[in-house]
Order: sequence, then structure tokens, then C-alpha cells
Amino acid sequence: MIHFVLASHGRFAQEALASARMICGLPTGNFHVISLLDGGEGINRFETEAKELAAALENETVLLLADLFGAGPFMTLLSAFRDNNYKMLTGLNLPMVIEAMQCDDADLEEAAQNLLEAGKESGIQLLDKLVPEEETE
Amino acid sequence: MIHFVLASHGRFAQEALASARMICGLPTGNFHVISLLDGGEGINRFETEAKELAAALENETVLLLADLFGAGPFMTLLSAFRDNNYKMLTGLNLPMVIEAMQCDDADLEEAAQNLLEAGKESGIQLLDKLVPEEETE
Repeated sequence: MIHFVLASHGRFAQEALASARMICGLPTGNFHVISLLDGGEGINRFETEAKELAAALENETVLLLADLFGAGPFMTLLSAFRDNNYKMLTGLNLPMVIEAMQCDDADLEEAAQNLLEAGKESGIQLLDKLVPEEETE
Repeated sequence: MIHFVLASHGRFAQEALASARMICGLPTGNFHVISLLDGGEGINRFETEAKELAAALENETVLLLADLFGAGPFMTLLSAFRDNNYKMLTGLNLPMVIEAMQCDDADLEEAAQNLLEAGKESGIQLLDKLVPEEETE
């Protein structure tokens, strides 16, 4: 079973998981959240939690989901999980988390590609205003 | 000035805005959040808030950011904002919201393309495990 680690500035990752559970209602024992909270201890606490989680998951396969490429949570995860078997996805959104809840039997490469497809290619769409038919006749 | 409406199941959109403010610290008077909360009144309350916001923004340019394509918040926004000048982006993530905070002078088409690029093309990346140089020598 793949373990998913969701990490973000603030409670964004935590609420992404809560919203996905609201939709899917699936068990989330293999989901873990680390939040970078405001205040002087924020990044130190985030780093401590990341290292503790990395140690607890040392024999597991891990897909890291970070809110932003290159920012504090991203960099700290890379450092903390350096000895783990992991891949990393950035730009965490709800389609990714919902896909994660549905692919816990896949291997890491397949899961990562599934989440990438769900979150990026099919998940992010730009739509113009709908024009009712009577206005185009 | 473009108005941004962030909408989601649960408090995901609300915390996306909070996390973006934690990073950017910019004023967010043109940002609005609607949350679909649990409970029997959830969708009715969401719809009421969406309609009230659409009326309040009837003379404004609006970029709608929804958590998921095709789900309740998405459909309700499309209905509530049918008489507004809007575009819609789905798959809301943090790079999109941060980009939104930085492009309030752009026109709607330009802003939508900027958010699409920030959230999708550059924001979502899949990275394999970093291998330290000494291990590859």
C-alpha cells in the first residue's frame, strides 16, 4: 500500500484531505498531513514532524504531495524523505487527492502517473462562459 | 479589478486563500470564498451564498475557481453566475491563488491564461527521488 504525505503552508493540505473524505468517505489510514503553521516555531515543527514521519515510513512506498514547487514544505520534505522510497508531486489539488484514494493498489510509478493525469490534465480546465442556446439562435 | 471566487467542498478553498495570504500577505478584498459544508442545509446554503455573491458582483469581471470539474460547487457556480461576466477554472490549487494575487490588473482572458499556466503547466510537477551525486559516481 502506498502512503500519501500531504504537506502545505497552513491548513490547505489538511482541508484538501477533509474535503476529499467528504466526497469519497474512504478510509484514510495511509494518508498523512503535515502543516506549516504560522509562528516562530513553524518551520522547526514542520521539519520535526516530517523527519518523524519519514522514519515511521522507512519501509513503505511514499508519494509526497506538496502545495508549491520549491517552497519551504517542498524543500523540507525532500530533505526529510531522502532515505525513503518516494516520488513527489507539487501543486496539490483535490482531483489528485481523490485519485489517491482510489489507487492504493497501484505501484508508485503508476500511482504517480495517475495522480498527475487526474490533477493536471483532466483536473484543471479553463471554461468560457456558457451561452444558452436561445442566445445563439 | 478582477474578482476571484474560490469555491469548494468543505473548507479547502478557504484554507487555500489563507495559505496564499500566509505566503504573499497581499490584500484580498477582491477575493471571495464559498464553502459547501456538511449537513442537510449545505447545498442550499451554498446556492444562496453563490446567488448573493453573483448579484453583488453583477457589474464586475469574475474568475471562478472551483475545486472539481462537474461536482456540486462547480454546477452551482455556473448556474448562479450565468448573468455575470465570468470565466471558470477547475482544479483549484495554491499556485493559481498566488498567481491571482499578482495579476489584478490583467484583463479576464489574460488573467485566466496566467492562472492556467501557473496552476497547471508550471505548478504541477512530478519529481523522481533525488539521488545524491556520490551515489552515481
